[in-house]
Amino acid sequence: ELVALTCQAIENINTRVITSAEQKPLSGQKWLITAGPTREAIDPVRYISNHSSGKMGFAIASAAQSLGAEVTIISGPVNLTTPQNCQKIAVTSAVEMHQQALAHAPKSDVFVACAAVADYRIDHIASEKIKKSQDTMQLNLIKNPDIVADVAALESKPFTVGFAAETQDVEHYAKGKLARKKLDMIAANNVAEIGQGFNSDDNALTVFTANDEKVLPLMSKSELAKQLVQHIHHTFQSTRLKK
Amino acid sequence: ELVALTCQAIENINTRVITSAEQKPLSGQKWLITAGPTREAIDPVRYISNHSSGKMGFAIASAAQSLGAEVTIISGPVNLTTPQNCQKIAVTSAVEMHQQALAHAPKSDVFVACAAVADYRIDHIASEKIKKSQDTMQLNLIKNPDIVADVAALESKPFTVGFAAETQDVEHYAKGKLARKKLDMIAANNVAEIGQGFNSDDNALTVFTANDEKVLPLMSKSELAKQLVQHIHHTFQSTRLKK
Repeated sequence: ELVALTCQAIENINTRVITSAEQKPLSGQKWLITAGPTREAIDPVRYISNHSSGKMGFAIASAAQSLGAEVTIISGPVNLTTPQNCQKIAVTSAVEMHQQALAHAPKSDVFVACAAVADYRIDHIASEKIKKSQDTMQLNLIKNPDIVADVAALESKPFTVGFAAETQDVEHYAKGKLARKKLDMIAANNVAEIGQGFNSDDNALTVFTANDEKVLPLMSKSELAKQLVQHIHHTFQSTRLKK
Repeated sequence: ELVALTCQAIENINTRVITSAEQKPLSGQKWLITAGPTREAIDPVRYISNHSSGKMGFAIASAAQSLGAEVTIISGPVNLTTPQNCQKIAVTSAVEMHQQALAHAPKSDVFVACAAVADYRIDHIASEKIKKSQDTMQLNLIKNPDIVADVAALESKPFTVGFAAETQDVEHYAKGKLARKKLDMIAANNVAEIGQGFNSDDNALTVFTANDEKVLPLMSKSELAKQLVQHIHHTFQSTRLKK
């Protein structure tokens, strides 16, 4: 009976070890995730931004962390609690996010560019509040640095995943972005669809690599994030095996 | 002893009645308060906004309600709980806020324009997400309707209080705005000062009427709101007595 108990105990320990290793497949990996919108100042009180809530990026961070990864989130202004055991770096503008991403990407294994980065910023930010003396006004914008493309162009680049939030021709734009920016993967969604995308709690994605396509249908952002993280992980592993 | 107790009881009732009347000096008054920022769409995903949190407007609503007023808040996008027993009308753009304000102002006794309304909106909102094909971009803006000036110009105008959030020459701009827009009162603050204004929990105001000026020094927005509401009420009462 003592032997039986001992065997049972050893079996239990084995099961626990195996479960723990299976549940933490990302152990030892560093994931860098951008999230939320950026804000581009017009003057001290006004800015340009977008409808990103940061929910998707934070859900990906949480999923990667719970699977064992060491996670850093670079986030624009959001109203979200940072997931447990993730490090958050708060930024405001695209230029700030670019600086932080380029500083942290070389030491990361996976980079997920989930933030909705402003494509343009104001050419000259006014130091005082602009007075509305005119009936019309022109804002001159210049292009922001392309964060995900610059990370993908690094010599020691992490496995780089981009996002494409589109309102039309989603597949066409997403595949173009994947190739042009030399990404390893791109997750595309149609933000014009009801019940998904910005500020929604649900989302659906179609994930493209150069060779394949995977549809993750409409579900909660937390469940979607888990499935996306697992898909990224498997693709990343098979890429490493090929090398 | 019975008499003593009865007297005590009557005294208690009197005290309660007097206290209740004193604590609810705004009973029977309708207050309309705008709060928060507005968002002006550029395309389906991008917009222009400002750093207003809505805290000051919501604090004024709460203070007026607890002093007995029937309060309606017209609010842009904020992350705040609507104060108890206040009605909230949610809007996004300046044009929507203008419509709601003009619809509700004629039946209001006091109008407090605390929202940080965008002075300009995009001339032509793109129906699809604008692609970043160019290195530069120009946004053509046109002036938004002036909500507080249009309310102050109503034939049956409520007692109209404006706000001036400035980064320089605060008194000069505030007094100019008071006269030009025919306001009854204007509350001015310097948002460039550390620890006050947008998104801060504290604020300081200098309140001007055509004849006087009252300084409300740096304090919590909830305490400041109480003092401002009392100052508005007293000025409003003395205006009515003069008529």
